[in-house]
Amino acid sequence: MGKDPESAETVGEFTAKDYTDPPPAALIDAKELTKWSFYRAVIAEFIATLLFLYITVATVIGYKSATDPNKNTPDNVNCGGVGILGIAWAFGGMIFILVYCTAGISGGHINPAVTFGLFLARKVSLIRALMYMIAQCLGAICGVGLVKGFQKAFYVRYGGGANELADGYNKGTGLAAEIIGTFVLVYTVFSATDPKRSARDSHVPVLAPLPIGFAVFMVHLATIPITGTGINPARSFGAAVIYNKDKAWDDQWIFWVGPFIGAAIAAAYHQYILRAGAIKALGSFRSNHHV
Amino acid sequence: MGKDPESAETVGEFTAKDYTDPPPAALIDAKELTKWSFYRAVIAEFIATLLFLYITVATVIGYKSATDPNKNTPDNVNCGGVGILGIAWAFGGMIFILVYCTAGISGGHINPAVTFGLFLARKVSLIRALMYMIAQCLGAICGVGLVKGFQKAFYVRYGGGANELADGYNKGTGLAAEIIGTFVLVYTVFSATDPKRSARDSHVPVLAPLPIGFAVFMVHLATIPITGTGINPARSFGAAVIYNKDKAWDDQWIFWVGPFIGAAIAAAYHQYILRAGAIKALGSFRSNHHV
Amino acid sequence: MGKDPESAETVGEFTAKDYTDPPPAALIDAKELTKWSFYRAVIAEFIATLLFLYITVATVIGYKSATDPNKNTPDNVNCGGVGILGIAWAFGGMIFILVYCTAGISGGHINPAVTFGLFLARKVSLIRALMYMIAQCLGAICGVGLVKGFQKAFYVRYGGGANELADGYNKGTGLAAEIIGTFVLVYTVFSATDPKRSARDSHVPVLAPLPIGFAVFMVHLATIPITGTGINPARSFGAAVIYNKDKAWDDQWIFWVGPFIGAAIAAAYHQYILRAGAIKALGSFRSNHHV
Amino acid sequence: MGKDPESAETVGEFTAKDYTDPPPAALIDAKELTKWSFYRAVIAEFIATLLFLYITVATVIGYKSATDPNKNTPDNVNCGGVGILGIAWAFGGMIFILVYCTAGISGGHINPAVTFGLFLARKVSLIRALMYMIAQCLGAICGVGLVKGFQKAFYVRYGGGANELADGYNKGTGLAAEIIGTFVLVYTVFSATDPKRSARDSHVPVLAPLPIGFAVFMVHLATIPITGTGINPARSFGAAVIYNKDKAWDDQWIFWVGPFIGAAIAAAYHQYILRAGAIKALGSFRSNHHV
Repeated sequence: MGKDPESAETVGEFTAKDYTDPPPAALIDAKELTKWSFYRAVIAEFIATLLFLYITVATVIGYKSATDPNKNTPDNVNCGGVGILGIAWAFGGMIFILVYCTAGISGGHINPAVTFGLFLARKVSLIRALMYMIAQCLGAICGVGLVKGFQKAFYVRYGGGANELADGYNKGTGLAAEIIGTFVLVYTVFSATDPKRSARDSHVPVLAPLPIGFAVFMVHLATIPITGTGINPARSFGAAVIYNKDKAWDDQWIFWVGPFIGAAIAAAYHQYILRAGAIKALGSFRSNHHV
Repeated sequence: MGKDPESAETVGEFTAKDYTDPPPAALIDAKELTKWSFYRAVIAEFIATLLFLYITVATVIGYKSATDPNKNTPDNVNCGGVGILGIAWAFGGMIFILVYCTAGISGGHINPAVTFGLFLARKVSLIRALMYMIAQCLGAICGVGLVKGFQKAFYVRYGGGANELADGYNKGTGLAAEIIGTFVLVYTVFSATDPKRSARDSHVPVLAPLPIGFAVFMVHLATIPITGTGINPARSFGAAVIYNKDKAWDDQWIFWVGPFIGAAIAAAYHQYILRAGAIKALGSFRSNHHV
Repeated sequence: MGKDPESAETVGEFTAKDYTDPPPAALIDAKELTKWSFYRAVIAEFIATLLFLYITVATVIGYKSATDPNKNTPDNVNCGGVGILGIAWAFGGMIFILVYCTAGISGGHINPAVTFGLFLARKVSLIRALMYMIAQCLGAICGVGLVKGFQKAFYVRYGGGANELADGYNKGTGLAAEIIGTFVLVYTVFSATDPKRSARDSHVPVLAPLPIGFAVFMVHLATIPITGTGINPARSFGAAVIYNKDKAWDDQWIFWVGPFIGAAIAAAYHQYILRAGAIKALGSFRSNHHV
Repeated sequence: MGKDPESAETVGEFTAKDYTDPPPAALIDAKELTKWSFYRAVIAEFIATLLFLYITVATVIGYKSATDPNKNTPDNVNCGGVGILGIAWAFGGMIFILVYCTAGISGGHINPAVTFGLFLARKVSLIRALMYMIAQCLGAICGVGLVKGFQKAFYVRYGGGANELADGYNKGTGLAAEIIGTFVLVYTVFSATDPKRSARDSHVPVLAPLPIGFAVFMVHLATIPITGTGINPARSFGAAVIYNKDKAWDDQWIFWVGPFIGAAIAAAYHQYILRAGAIKALGSFRSNHHV
């Protein structure tokens, strides 16, 4: 609110002075495989996704255990846990701290859909994108596995933190909810990491991890009643592997197709509309526009 | 707290050095119609308002579904959803992330009352203000439409997210609640975007989107029991169009008149009291005061 | 965590380079009475305290109305409102945004105990301190008055937002709770506004309003069950004036004496322990220490 | 998300320019005992831990009192307090404001496990680490003592805020929960205070206290149902001393061994994996790598 939008065009003409768009990442960059920083980044993604799933699924199981009417007396059955609001905080808050901790090491993806969106925008190479996604899925399996290892009976009884379509919603709705939810997240990620904006808006680089975490929090508030909220294929996959029931596997495709489509739309929206790539390509409006 | 207020006057005399008030926006600026940045800003307002209504109304419907006594067993009827607190977070948190994402593109209004306040303060042209308001209203209609499309039966049964005056409150109270609530929001927007303050207080430009989001969160905590909280005519209008019941339309004027009056008072308070425009105009107190 | 504490002493020897302690404020500064910035600051304190009480007391009344067992069916009596947690957020969140908005105008006190603490530390003059306190009390009365004006029956039935000692706690406990709670708040204010720390720790000036708001939020979580949480004499006084029942007036002294003692202890802790004023006065430890 | 991870290695070669790793702290540094800043830091740790325990244990007792089915009518027994979510906020929010307030004075540990982790990384001397831990434990005892002093009957009846293993979990699970929880916290502390990252990522030094507080908040959401969440030996010890029941003492070792192991793993992860200390020691991958 209130950054003078008139000046946006003008600022664009000073780009060479205050920011540089990094060159597109190579599809396959053999050289990065020789660097420790590459393996360190893959390890960081593994550990971060493990911690993400461990904390969030433990919160889900703890909440369901505290509000189980068969286990609790009627007096304390309600409100005995952290509530759906607490679960939404767990997902959003963990993304906030993990993006904060890993941003400088791996870029802080912690989510194959985010990696896919950044790959489409040529911010990471193909080989890095694939390695990140494998690390994220393995981390998610280990994180959910820890929760099951802690208390197997509770884990199985309370649904295992798996994403499933709720009663009363059809598959198209679930898919649309995942697409829009992931769009909100990946749009925020692109806004937070745009080098052009960072140079102009002082709050962008400073706050970056906080709105990314809030985006996850918001989407959970809206879509926990619909799909349990995936918007992160590693999260859905890890829970399905450990929980391993038919319903979770039958709906699994929704939690891969939806997030990848949402991430692709967000990447296109950012590149072609907001960064005016479409205009540059068409050569219209202004022939000397370099943005 | 603790910025030495004594120095405010002194600092005022150095204005030429550390900040510049941009010149007032023209009422009608034909040149901006030729720039892609103008259309991009209108698109960004449309998308942001769409996402705002989609997430928030989905949260409202999901909460009401989870706490419906006819649908749930007595054991889990209470606390089954995110609560009124979760709804207030959804509205405030979405404004936080959307202002963060669109501040550098469109100025991040996402609300016709904010656009109106900034137009009164001559921060945006008339043509831009009108185009933003149209984009915001269309975005709101589409966002609520998505929620209805997802689950029509739930949407209609649980009130459609429409703003209506609650039982026990008269129309004057509802209007006053909207005026004061919008004043809180637009006063925060003006405080967050004042170029004079940005130059002096290091936290102002960095944190800007966060207190704006919190202002929305706070007003919802206070006035959800009174009007459901509008303070955003596009939000109220979009829900009324899609829900389309008499009560929502009968009360609709409150959610346009109230926010516009509140925004006008906030603009006047900022310009004439806080920025001392009144004093400058009267030529009193200090003849050599340039602020 | 992690700022190397070893360097604190060393940094102290560079004070002349990177920060300046402003000179102590005069007890009575006639010159400030001739400046518009002084009256503007008093107006800003009035408006901010009015908004603070309006939003917070409306939240309290709305919550109690939503959970009234006589008015609601058993099915929705619980959890119908924002909860005690929502009330605590209302108080803390409003302080966050109001300190953010008024920091550059008035210093952002919004609380006679904060004004008193900053007066003891010679950050504001006596005349300014008195004028602020009067403005804060008048603002609080008007803010609570608005809530009563909106819905008089609800306001009276649900306790008027007044601070009273809860059953089961004696007056000494209530007084101690107010003292420690105000200490937490004013200690945070001093930490956030220390010019020595601002120069050294990059997060101090940027985040300042947020931890101040959180301090208020935290104290409310802990002491709402004991005293309803005052830690702000204007808040307690405004509610007592408008509610005007014996119990609120009988306990009123607790909400003035407690906060003023707490603020004084926080000022002494900051000046004599943390800023080492005690050591400087005694001339001990290091004869050439200038901090 | 989105910091270009490719540049991490390159940046490493400019280390001499934009950041300096402070030299490892001496094991025993007699000189620091002669400085006021050392004693001031110990006092600040004592006061901060006292306030931490006072606010958080008071919140726990207040919540349990408000939801006691024997004391309350069935109508308001649920949701009468701040909820488990409010308790988690109290722990996380207090750490946020106390780290903010004490970072520049003592480094803002407020937790023997954090002190231990920073000692292992040679950020503090042995003598400072021991003095901090003693101050933290004494502060915790005093803070819990205040809550007991306020209302002894409530304190004893509602469990005294002590950490105990919940029914249904074995000791190994409790220990693992404490290890991983403390790892999350201390990993965040190391990420927030790494001088290499601070120089490169603009958000790291500015936001530092906020993600540290959120890490505590997150771990409480996940593990309150398992152990009540320690991850801070001073917190567990202080509550056990004042509550003084067998069960709290029997489980006490979990809340010392677990956090210390978790902190050690986090220190090793940061030093040997993320900062590539392992690689440097092995001399592999790149012979001219100086990081």
